[in-house]
Amino acid sequence: MALKKRDVFFGKDTTLELLNSGKSVDKILIMRGKHGGEYSEIRELCAQKKIPINIVPKEKINYLLNPLIPGGYIDHQGVMGIFSPIEYANIDDILHSVIYKGKDVNLVLLDNITDVRNVGAIARSALAFGADALVVPIKGSAQINHESIKASAGTLTDIPICREHDLKSTIEYLKLNGIAIIGTSLKGKVSIQDINFRKPMALVLGSEGEGMSPEIEALCDEIFVIPMTGKVDSLNVSVSSGVCMYEIFNQRNETF
Amino acid sequence: MALKKRDVFFGKDTTLELLNSGKSVDKILIMRGKHGGEYSEIRELCAQKKIPINIVPKEKINYLLNPLIPGGYIDHQGVMGIFSPIEYANIDDILHSVIYKGKDVNLVLLDNITDVRNVGAIARSALAFGADALVVPIKGSAQINHESIKASAGTLTDIPICREHDLKSTIEYLKLNGIAIIGTSLKGKVSIQDINFRKPMALVLGSEGEGMSPEIEALCDEIFVIPMTGKVDSLNVSVSSGVCMYEIFNQRNETF
Repeated sequence: MALKKRDVFFGKDTTLELLNSGKSVDKILIMRGKHGGEYSEIRELCAQKKIPINIVPKEKINYLLNPLIPGGYIDHQGVMGIFSPIEYANIDDILHSVIYKGKDVNLVLLDNITDVRNVGAIARSALAFGADALVVPIKGSAQINHESIKASAGTLTDIPICREHDLKSTIEYLKLNGIAIIGTSLKGKVSIQDINFRKPMALVLGSEGEGMSPEIEALCDEIFVIPMTGKVDSLNVSVSSGVCMYEIFNQRNETF
Repeated sequence: MALKKRDVFFGKDTTLELLNSGKSVDKILIMRGKHGGEYSEIRELCAQKKIPINIVPKEKINYLLNPLIPGGYIDHQGVMGIFSPIEYANIDDILHSVIYKGKDVNLVLLDNITDVRNVGAIARSALAFGADALVVPIKGSAQINHESIKASAGTLTDIPICREHDLKSTIEYLKLNGIAIIGTSLKGKVSIQDINFRKPMALVLGSEGEGMSPEIEALCDEIFVIPMTGKVDSLNVSVSSGVCMYEIFNQRNETF
C-alpha cells in the first residue's frame, strides 16, 4: 500500500523530537553507515520504546520519500520514520488494570503470524471473545498497518496491542507473574475442552504452516489440540484461533 | 487468474459433446444473440446439469480465447466453456449415502459468500468438523476455482460440493426430507449452545456484511447467536463458520 505524506517523517531532529514526544511510530529506517551522535540517540530511543529499526541503503529512503514530496530536494539526512496507525499498549499497564479489576488475565500471543488478514481476523475474535490484549513481537509478525486494520473490521484500534522485543522473554516475564502459557499444537495430547482456562493465562497462536516455533512451544505450560475428524491436518489459523478464544470465553462465562 | 489452454473448450460440437459426456464444467459462455439449434440444446443441458451460463458479447469470448491459441483464427462459433477444477456432487446421492450409514445429515449451505478465501477456509473447517457436504448456489456465491482451492489448503477437492440452482428451493427440498434448517443471525435470541444439533440438519452461513438474505432467514427452523462480549458486531465469516461447525462437531461427538 502506498504511503501518504502524513504517514511519514524524516531528518535527525524531527525523528528525535517525535520519538521523545511519545508519538506512536511503526518503524524507523536508517541509512546504512549512519552511526554516532543523533543516530545513536535514535537507535537507543527505538530500543527503549520497542520500535523496529530497518538499516537500508540511501536509495530505499529516496524511493519512499521522493514520490511524497515532489519537486524539491529532500534532505532526509539518512533517517526517516513511519507513523503507526495505532497506539501500542504497555504490557504492565494491561496486567495491572486486569488485576485491579479482580479479573484473570487473558492474553493472546502471536508467534510468526505473518498474514495481515489473519492478524486482523484474530484481533476481531479476540475483542469478541474478551481477550485483554494481543501481544505481537517486533520481528517476524505481520505489521499492524491499514490493511490489517481493514481486515480486522476496525477492531485492531479497539483492542490493546502490546509490541514486544521478543516473545521468549515476554513469556518468561509472564510466567514470573503467575500467568499460565497455553498453546495449541497438532502434537498436543489433551483436548481443548480438558484445559482449565479459568485462571490467569496467555494463549499462544502459532503460524499457519509451522505452528509455534519449537522454543516457544517448549515454554508452554500446557498444550492442547482442537478435536477434529482427522480428515484434515489443520484449520486456517484465523479459524483455529477463533475456536480457541470461543472455548476460553465459554469456560469463563459458564454459570454453574 | 489467467486461464490456460487446458482449462477451456469452444465450438458448438465440442461443447455439446463435453456436456453430454458428464465432464465437470464450471460455466458456459454463449455469445449474445445465439439461439436455436445446438445453442438451445446447450442451454437445456446446462439447466439440467446446473451449469451457469453467461450471455456475453463476442469480444469477451475472443478476449478469453485469443491469448490461449496464438496465431490461428479461432472459430469458436460464439460458445465456449471453462472446465471445473472439481467434480460436483449430487445432493440426493449425499443424502442417501449418509442415511444409508445410519448417520444424521450434516450439511453446510453458503448464502452469498462471495470471497474465495472465505469459501476455502469454510471448506477446510467443514471437512475438519465432519460436515457431509457444502451446498453452493449457482449465482451469488464465490466460484470454486484454483484460488479458492488454494485457500482451502486443497480440502475443496476432498469435501463433496453440491451446486444448486437456488438455495431457496434447495432448502424447501431439504425440509421435505426432514432436515432442520439452522442459521446464525445477530438477531437470534438463542445461544448456539442451546441448539440441538444431534439430528439431520443443515447449517446456513450468510455473507460477511449482510448475514443471510431475508428470504433464506425466513425459511430457517432455528436461528442462533454465538455468545460474545458485545464489543464487536460480528466475527469474520470464516471464523464464525468455524466456531459453529466446532460446536456441532462437539455436540455430535459428546459421550454421556
